[in-house]
Amino acid sequence: MLKGIIRGNVVSTRKQESLVGSKFMEVQIIENGNLTDKYIIAIDSVGAGIGETVLITVGSPARLALSNKCAPADAVIVGIVD
Amino acid sequence: MLKGIIRGNVVSTRKQESLVGSKFMEVQIIENGNLTDKYIIAIDSVGAGIGETVLITVGSPARLALSNKCAPADAVIVGIVD
Amino acid sequence: MLKGIIRGNVVSTRKQESLVGSKFMEVQIIENGNLTDKYIIAIDSVGAGIGETVLITVGSPARLALSNKCAPADAVIVGIVD
Amino acid sequence: MLKGIIRGNVVSTRKQESLVGSKFMEVQIIENGNLTDKYIIAIDSVGAGIGETVLITVGSPARLALSNKCAPADAVIVGIVD
Amino acid sequence: MLKGIIRGNVVSTRKQESLVGSKFMEVQIIENGNLTDKYIIAIDSVGAGIGETVLITVGSPARLALSNKCAPADAVIVGIVD
Repeated sequence: MLKGIIRGNVVSTRKQESLVGSKFMEVQIIENGNLTDKYIIAIDSVGAGIGETVLITVGSPARLALSNKCAPADAVIVGIVD
Repeated sequence: MLKGIIRGNVVSTRKQESLVGSKFMEVQIIENGNLTDKYIIAIDSVGAGIGETVLITVGSPARLALSNKCAPADAVIVGIVD
Repeated sequence: MLKGIIRGNVVSTRKQESLVGSKFMEVQIIENGNLTDKYIIAIDSVGAGIGETVLITVGSPARLALSNKCAPADAVIVGIVD
Repeated sequence: MLKGIIRGNVVSTRKQESLVGSKFMEVQIIENGNLTDKYIIAIDSVGAGIGETVLITVGSPARLALSNKCAPADAVIVGIVD
Repeated sequence: MLKGIIRGNVVSTRKQESLVGSKFMEVQIIENGNLTDKYIIAIDSVGAGIGETVLITVGSPARLALSNKCAPADAVIVGIVD
């Protein structure tokens, strides 16, 4: 998993039907406690908001965190770091 | 997901039969609002065109956005950013 | 697989239900015997602790090391290096 | 998908039985029309030869382009660029 | 696939039960005939030894080269280069 801070959201009106209702967040990756210049766009699954530090699962396992397990998603926020 | 701008298309006449009809687009990746020097070739699934900012799903989940879910595709455009 | 040293743990109270009980560890990657500046967050499956050198499986195969094979996990500690 | 030019082939007599008959090609990756210093070894599925510009699918979807969909392949040439 | 030279092995007594008997090799990656500073740990499936040049399949397809196709492995040596 990756750790990062949610910096903003991405709005897409025209999108895959299976992604309708998904909340796309732009997340800045943290490594070893330091902010990096890497960013990823992840779908929220835990009610996280801008400014929160989160855990992101990437790749094929990510969509297992969504209610629709066949959605074409490659990055999902799976936890909020305390 | 990745965010990027469609810069061009790639034409391939001789290709895997399961990819016939696919529209291959070359997309320049954007991170944190800035253009990067990273490019990816993705199949369009939402009617996106050159110059549009899009969301791309990569890896194994990508093909879930195609009508043929067994196509050998590793990157698919799944949304157009507003 | 990747090799690395466990440097700390990550606590997340609000997380995906399928990840409840998972122990998230921050691991510093080792390549060719040298510490790198790459870090990954992996779920422990072998009882590893901070300071131990471990093997990590990443990507879709990672969750095969968990009791819940449908957990949205992309990195799991699968061995402790002697 | 990645775009690249086939630079050579790789011969392996002792290999996984499910890969017998596979043609391994070393491909130099092209991004935005420029040659990079990245190389990948991909199995040909479209009759491509040295010097041709090709499209490569990587990761888990790659093997969907092979007749044996259970072959342990992570990169397959799926098209020849016109 | 990646090409590389086996530089050593990694011993792990405490590991996932499904990985017992696996031979973990540290492999230095070769690109375009040149040694790189990238290393990966892969499970041998073809009887390769230290110093041999090998082909490695990474990611989800890797475990298809193992007798236990549900082992949590993300990199497997699938061929020895002639």
